[in-house]
Amino acid sequence: MLAESCIFCKIIRGEIPSQKVFENDEVLAFLDINPLSTGHTVVIPKRHAERLADLDEDWNAALGRVIGRLSKLVVSVVAAEGHNVLQNDGAVAGQVVPHVHYHIVPRWASDGLGYRWNAKSANADELTQLAQRIRAAL
Amino acid sequence: MLAESCIFCKIIRGEIPSQKVFENDEVLAFLDINPLSTGHTVVIPKRHAERLADLDEDWNAALGRVIGRLSKLVVSVVAAEGHNVLQNDGAVAGQVVPHVHYHIVPRWASDGLGYRWNAKSANADELTQLAQRIRAAL
Repeated sequence: MLAESCIFCKIIRGEIPSQKVFENDEVLAFLDINPLSTGHTVVIPKRHAERLADLDEDWNAALGRVIGRLSKLVVSVVAAEGHNVLQNDGAVAGQVVPHVHYHIVPRWASDGLGYRWNAKSANADELTQLAQRIRAAL
Repeated sequence: MLAESCIFCKIIRGEIPSQKVFENDEVLAFLDINPLSTGHTVVIPKRHAERLADLDEDWNAALGRVIGRLSKLVVSVVAAEGHNVLQNDGAVAGQVVPHVHYHIVPRWASDGLGYRWNAKSANADELTQLAQRIRAAL
């Protein structure tokens, strides 16, 4: 269930120290040692899975449950003005450690964090066709 | 449970058209009309809540469950190389519509998307103290 050489599995097993903030049977949360902001928290499933697609719905529900509870708590403790929840899936999306993890990043107006993400207007027909394809795949 | 003037509540009620890709009792998912990439999907709870902290754990579990399932599906349908899951909580974090929503953003190496997020190394003592404060607040 855990992987021998995975750094997050080593944290789960206690072989690498971490600043844990929450733990239950399915989920572990700890402070990021290279934080984007004060209170930056990493939330992981306590089984090895590289990508979100490798987890079934119950694991994803367990993660969602903890993310909701912890984000509220972390934001409150560090007195942030907001937060981002972020999951990078795949190297192309910025995933560095190949064990599924969500970031909770507390935010302040002055923090200088942000995106290089430029939205475009979609073609309505293309959207319609794409939605049909996704629904058909369900 | 829904808000009169909220644009996402209007989508839930069907007063504003959307390209729905998934719906169950708790959650609705539809294609973003201003996509960051092909397949950009918005996942929302079917009750009005402005911030993640306004949802209880069961709602967050329901969201997590759908995000896991849908991200896998969307990535597969559009043949993406990865994805980001992103929730912006508060205007300071980039939240535009004041109704909780997660973005699923399919990613490709050539898409030009990214972050302006510079991680720093944390002071170990400060991390220890912060973890204690968060655990104490649980």
